[in-house]
Amino acid sequence: MYDKKNILFQHGTMQILAEGLLDGTISLKSLLEHGNTGIGTGEGIDGELIILNNVAYRIDTNGKAIKLNDNFMVPFANVNFANYTFLKKVKDEPLNHLLSIIEKEIKGSNKFFSIKINGCFEEIKTRSAGKSSKPYPSLKEVAKKQVEFYGSDITGTVVSYHTPKVFQGVGVAGFHSHFLSDDLNFGGHILSAYLNYGVVEIQVMDTFEQHLPNDNLAYQNANLSNLKHLDEIIKKSE
Amino acid sequence: MYDKKNILFQHGTMQILAEGLLDGTISLKSLLEHGNTGIGTGEGIDGELIILNNVAYRIDTNGKAIKLNDNFMVPFANVNFANYTFLKKVKDEPLNHLLSIIEKEIKGSNKFFSIKINGCFEEIKTRSAGKSSKPYPSLKEVAKKQVEFYGSDITGTVVSYHTPKVFQGVGVAGFHSHFLSDDLNFGGHILSAYLNYGVVEIQVMDTFEQHLPNDNLAYQNANLSNLKHLDEIIKKSE
Repeated sequence: MYDKKNILFQHGTMQILAEGLLDGTISLKSLLEHGNTGIGTGEGIDGELIILNNVAYRIDTNGKAIKLNDNFMVPFANVNFANYTFLKKVKDEPLNHLLSIIEKEIKGSNKFFSIKINGCFEEIKTRSAGKSSKPYPSLKEVAKKQVEFYGSDITGTVVSYHTPKVFQGVGVAGFHSHFLSDDLNFGGHILSAYLNYGVVEIQVMDTFEQHLPNDNLAYQNANLSNLKHLDEIIKKSE
Repeated sequence: MYDKKNILFQHGTMQILAEGLLDGTISLKSLLEHGNTGIGTGEGIDGELIILNNVAYRIDTNGKAIKLNDNFMVPFANVNFANYTFLKKVKDEPLNHLLSIIEKEIKGSNKFFSIKINGCFEEIKTRSAGKSSKPYPSLKEVAKKQVEFYGSDITGTVVSYHTPKVFQGVGVAGFHSHFLSDDLNFGGHILSAYLNYGVVEIQVMDTFEQHLPNDNLAYQNANLSNLKHLDEIIKKSE
C-alpha cells in the first residue's frame, strides 16, 4: 500500500461548484481525517479556506481569517498530510513564474504535487467570496459577491496544489493557491503575488484520492454532461 | 476513514494509453493489493485483463484466457475489493440497454460504481489486442493488432465500471466492461452482448483512488496537454 502521507485527498469536484451545486457535503471534522494541510471553500462558496497544522481558517469578505470549528460544512477541498521537503530559497520573484519554473524543474506537468511557501510578499492580490444561500443563485450572482484584496509587505504561507491537465473539471488544472498571513489578517485565493523572499517546500503525490458526495440529492440529480464551458467557469468560480 | 471495500482503485489513465505510453508501470502483485476484482490491459496493450476472486487472466489474441503471474506488468487497470450486493435478475436483454437502465435506476450518472453479471449470453462480441513492443508504434498500428471475437450461448461473468463524464480521459466515461467465460475459453473487452438471463450485482464507490506512474520517464516527459482528441482515441485504444 502507498504511504498515506503522499496522498492528495479531494472532496467534491470543481465541476460541482461550477454547476452551482454549493451544498456542504463533508464536515471539517471528517475532512481533517484525510489531511492536516489544505485549501477549499465553505457551503455556498462561503469564503476561501486554508488549513495549516490541522487548523482550518476561512478568509471572509473582509480578508481576515476566522478559525473554523469541526461542524463547518465543505463542498470542495484538497487536503494532504504534510510531508514536505525543502526545495529551495527564493528572492524577488513573481509567484506564477516561480511555480511554472518548479513544474519544469521537477518534471511535474503530469503529477499531482503540493508547494508550500513561507515568506515575505512585497505585493499580493487575493480573492474571497461571501456565502450564498439556497436556492443557490446563478454563478453570475455568486461572482458578484467576490471581493479582491491587495496587500503589501506581508509575511505568510502559500499552500498550492498542482493538478495534471487531464483532471481539469475534476480539480483545477495547473496550480491552485491559497494564502494566509502570519498575523491572520490577510488571505484568500491568490490571484497574483510577488515574493521578496521565501522558503519553498514540495510534496509530490503518488495517489489522488477523489471522494464524491454520492448521498447528496442535488449531486445525484444534476446533469453534469456538459464539459465544454468548464474551463471558463472554473477560473471565475472559486 | 472510508471503507476500503468501496474504493475504486485505478492505476494509470486512459490518456496515457491513448497517447501511446504503453510501459507496464505496476506489477500485478502490487495491483492486487488494491483489489481482488478488476479489468485492465498489459504492457504494450498485451491483451485484455479481467480479475475475479483475486485471480488475473489475460485474454490473448485467440480469445482464450491465460492465468497471469505476479510479475506481469500493467499500464492501466481498475480494481476493487468485491463488496457487491444483489440488484436484480434479468432475462432477454441487450447489455448496453441493461447498463443504461441501471445507471438511471440508481441515479448513478455522477457516481463511480461497478456492475458484475453472471449469466448466459445468447450473443457476445469482444475485442482483444496483441502486444506491441518498444519503441511503441502509432495507435493506428496498435489498432491493427486488435482482433474481434464472436460467441454464442456462453456462460460467464461481466465486470463493468462506470465513470462519471468529467473523468473522461482519466478513465473511460460511462461503462467499461470486460468478459470472461466460465470455461476460460472466451473473453475480452465487450463490444456488445445479449443476455439470455443473468444475475446482476452492484457496488457503488464513494472514493476513486487514482495512482499515477510518477517514476516512469516516458510519463514524466510526455506532453499530455491536448485533450481534444481523447474521446475518439479512447474508443479505439483499449
